[in-house]
Amino acid sequence: MSSDTRYDVLIIGGGPGGTPAAMALAQAGKHVMLVEAGRGLGGTCLFEGCIPSKIFRETAARRRELGRAAEFGLPGSDANTVSVDWSVVQTRKHHILNSRAQGALAKARELPELEVVFGRARLTGPRTAVIEAAGERREVGFDNVILATGSVASRLPIPGADLPGVLDSRGLIEIGFVPRSLTLIGGGPIGVEMAQIFAMLGARVTLLEAMPRILGPVDDVLANLLAERLQVDGIDVQTGVSVEAIEGEECRHVVRYTRDGKAYEVDAQVVAIVAGRHPNVDGLGLETTAVQHDRHGIKVGETLQTDEPGIYATGDLVGNPMFAHWATAQALAVARHLLGAPAAYPRPEYNSAVIFSYPELGMAGLTAEAARAAGLDVTVAEYDYRIDARAQISGDAFGRLRLVYRKDDRRVVGIHALVEGAADLMGEAELIVRHGLTLEQVAEAIHPHPTLTEAFGLTALGAR
Amino acid sequence: MSSDTRYDVLIIGGGPGGTPAAMALAQAGKHVMLVEAGRGLGGTCLFEGCIPSKIFRETAARRRELGRAAEFGLPGSDANTVSVDWSVVQTRKHHILNSRAQGALAKARELPELEVVFGRARLTGPRTAVIEAAGERREVGFDNVILATGSVASRLPIPGADLPGVLDSRGLIEIGFVPRSLTLIGGGPIGVEMAQIFAMLGARVTLLEAMPRILGPVDDVLANLLAERLQVDGIDVQTGVSVEAIEGEECRHVVRYTRDGKAYEVDAQVVAIVAGRHPNVDGLGLETTAVQHDRHGIKVGETLQTDEPGIYATGDLVGNPMFAHWATAQALAVARHLLGAPAAYPRPEYNSAVIFSYPELGMAGLTAEAARAAGLDVTVAEYDYRIDARAQISGDAFGRLRLVYRKDDRRVVGIHALVEGAADLMGEAELIVRHGLTLEQVAEAIHPHPTLTEAFGLTALGAR
Repeated sequence: MSSDTRYDVLIIGGGPGGTPAAMALAQAGKHVMLVEAGRGLGGTCLFEGCIPSKIFRETAARRRELGRAAEFGLPGSDANTVSVDWSVVQTRKHHILNSRAQGALAKARELPELEVVFGRARLTGPRTAVIEAAGERREVGFDNVILATGSVASRLPIPGADLPGVLDSRGLIEIGFVPRSLTLIGGGPIGVEMAQIFAMLGARVTLLEAMPRILGPVDDVLANLLAERLQVDGIDVQTGVSVEAIEGEECRHVVRYTRDGKAYEVDAQVVAIVAGRHPNVDGLGLETTAVQHDRHGIKVGETLQTDEPGIYATGDLVGNPMFAHWATAQALAVARHLLGAPAAYPRPEYNSAVIFSYPELGMAGLTAEAARAAGLDVTVAEYDYRIDARAQISGDAFGRLRLVYRKDDRRVVGIHALVEGAADLMGEAELIVRHGLTLEQVAEAIHPHPTLTEAFGLTALGAR
Repeated sequence: MSSDTRYDVLIIGGGPGGTPAAMALAQAGKHVMLVEAGRGLGGTCLFEGCIPSKIFRETAARRRELGRAAEFGLPGSDANTVSVDWSVVQTRKHHILNSRAQGALAKARELPELEVVFGRARLTGPRTAVIEAAGERREVGFDNVILATGSVASRLPIPGADLPGVLDSRGLIEIGFVPRSLTLIGGGPIGVEMAQIFAMLGARVTLLEAMPRILGPVDDVLANLLAERLQVDGIDVQTGVSVEAIEGEECRHVVRYTRDGKAYEVDAQVVAIVAGRHPNVDGLGLETTAVQHDRHGIKVGETLQTDEPGIYATGDLVGNPMFAHWATAQALAVARHLLGAPAAYPRPEYNSAVIFSYPELGMAGLTAEAARAAGLDVTVAEYDYRIDARAQISGDAFGRLRLVYRKDDRRVVGIHALVEGAADLMGEAELIVRHGLTLEQVAEAIHPHPTLTEAFGLTALGAR
C-alpha cells in the first residue's frame, strides 16, 4: 500500500457509482483513492446482478431455442430433455466476471493519480477516514468523498426467512445446481428475470407478488402482457398475496401465503426472496458526519451532495431507481461537478431501463400513467410486434411497442417496448424522449428494414 | 375489376417504393390505383430480397449456434453434423412471405379510395395508361403517376453467364437444396450475406469480387475486419479478380478468373451472379412520355419528379442507394408532396442501412472517407466490442463501433457498427447523425447496462 495520507477525493465503493467518478477525476489530474470491499471492481451489478443473471439467461434462452430448432429446419431436440451442465455455466460466469473486473482494474492502474485499494473505508469525520486493507490500517484525509457502497438485499420480516437454504438474489447467482422447483418471493425485475430463467432451464417455478400485479411501476399494458406470457410458459404467477411463513428444511421448503383471506401453500426445492434492496450504509462511519439517511437511502441535494458539505453519494446508496447505468451517470455528474465543469445529472423523466425478461422489456421516459399524474395530456400509439418482419423472421413475433406522446405538440414523453431485442432499442428511445422529438420527427427518420427499430417509425407514422 | 377510368394517382409497383405512397394518398382521400405485376404486395424486398434472405440467415445462424451449445453448458452437437431440412426453411419462407403480402393487401383493401390491381400497367402518354389484368385490358387516366417498378438483377457480360443453372439472387432465394459448394460472383451486400449464410449451412463457398476489397463504399476498417472474419469462417474470398468465363453443366460449374495476370479456376455445384442490379423500365411505355432514363435509372429532380411533369419515380428505379427503407421514405415524401404537405425527402448524408452479414454491419451517415471528400475535418472514435459486456454474454464479442465526428464542433456525422445486433442500433445512429448531436450529447444520454447500445455512450465519453 502506498503511504500517501492526503487525497483530493476519496471514493468508497468500486461499482458503477464509484469507479467511473474515480477514473474521470484521476484523468483530470485529481489525486484519488478508490476503496472497494468486494472481490474486484464492478460492484453488485458485475458480481451479483445484471451481468451474472444475463449469463444465466443466455444459457436458458439457448436451451429454449434448442427445443424449437425443428421449426427452422434443423433437427429438433425436445427442450425438456436437454440437460444443462451447470458447472459450465458457473465457470463461464466466473470467467466473464473476472475478466471484466481485471479489465477495469487494468484501466484504473494506467492512471498515476488513482490509487485502488481493496479493503474497507470508514469515515472518522467529515474530512478523514480509516482504510483497512490487507491487515494494515491507515488514516487518510481528503477534500471530498463520494460514497458509493450500493445496496444489499433486504431481509423480509417473514418467519423462516432466515432458514438455511432460503436464498436472496446473491445466493441465487451463486447456486450450484438448477433446482427442480423454485419459489420466488417478489415479482419485481429480479423475480421476473429469475422466474423465466429457471423455468427455461427446466425448473417448476412459482412467483409470489404482494401487489395486484408484477413489475410495479412498469407500463401496465406491457406488464400484463408479460404476466400472461409467464403463465403461458408454465410459471405459476400469484399476485396480491401475503407470504406468512417459510417452513421446512434445505431442499424442501414450503411457503405459506394468503390471498383474499384464503390460505395456500407451495413447496419447492429452493426458495429465494428477491423483494427489495436497501442502502448499504453499515460501517461507513456516517455518525461522525452530518450525513443523514433513512431506510430509502442517504439524503442528498440536487448535486448529490449530502447534508455534510464535501460528502457526496451516488447509486443505490441514494435510493431508487437502483440501476447500474443510473449510478454511472450520477458518478460522472459528481466528477464533473467536482472538476468545476457543467454536470448533467440524470433525471427520472429521461431515464431508460431494461428488464431482461423474456421477451425483454425496455422503457424510456414516462408511462402514460406517470405522465398523466404529472399533469400532461397524453395518449399512446401502439404497435403489435406480431406483424413485425424482423420479429417474424427470428421466430419471436410477440410483444408491443407503446409511444406515449403529448396531444398538444405530439412530442414523445415515454417509450415502452416488450419484444425480444428491446434492450438495444433503448438508446434510440432515450434520445427521442430526451430531445423531445415529435412523432413526425420519429417518422421521418430512416429505419432500416427489416429491424426491430422500424417499429418506431411505423408507429409514429400511423399515429392519428 | 372496377370499371373506373379516372384516378387522381396511378402507382405502378406494389413494393416499398409504391405501396406506402398508395396508402398515404388513399388515406388522405385521393382516388388511387396501385398496380402490381408480381405475386403480391411487397416487391423484391419481400419476395426476393431482404426478407427471404434473412429467413435463410435465421436458420444458418441457428445451425451455427447449435455447434456452440456446449460452451453455454448445453449438450453440444458438432455444427458440421447438423443436417438441414431445407424444405422446412422454404416452407417457412413461403408462409412468412405470403402472410406479409396478405397483411399488406388487407390493409390496402380497408381503404375505399384505393384500388389494388394485380397485373401490368403501361403508359400510353403522360396522363393515360393501359392496365392488363386477369385477361382484361382497360384504359385509365390520372393526374399523377408514381413509377415504382424497382430493379432486376443485371446479367454480366461473362461467357457462360446464361448457362442453365447459373443463378442470380432471385434464383438463389428459390434454390431447392443447400449446395455442397457455391461460387458467388459479386462481393457486395448480397454476395457477402449469401456467402456467410451458405457457409453456415455447410457449403464450401468462394466469393469473387472485382474490386480490391469487398463491400465497396462501406467503412474500410469494418469491411476489412469482416473480410478477415469471412476467411476465418472458411470462405475463400478472392478480391481484385476478373471473371473470364463460366463453364460446365448444371450442378458442376467451373468459374475461370484472373488476378494480377494469373489464371485461376474454382469449381462448385452452384454458381450465382450477385453483382449489380439495374432499373426495371421494360414495358413501362416511357417512350410515350418525356421521362428520361439511363442504365443508372430514371432521371428525377429534387421532388422525384421526372422530366415529364406529373410523373414521379421512386426506389430502385431512380438508382442507388437501392434499399427498401429508402424507397419507402421516397414514396412517403412524394405522397406528401402530392398532398401539398411539406415533404422530407431522404438525404444520403442521413441515410442508415444494414448489411446482414455475420456479424451485422450497420451504418448511418458518412464514412470518414466520404466526410473528408466532402471537405469536413473529421476524426474517428472507436470501440472494440471484444470488451463489451453484452457481446461477451451472448458469446459474440467481436466487432467494432466507429463514430465519425467533426473536430471543430464534435458533431457526429457518421456511425458504423460491426457487431451481431448492429441492425437494431441503427435507429439511434440515424437520430444522432440526423440531429447533429455532439459527442457530449451522446455521452450524457442514459444507455442501459448491459446492452450493445451502451457502446455509443462509452465511445463518445472516451473520445479525446
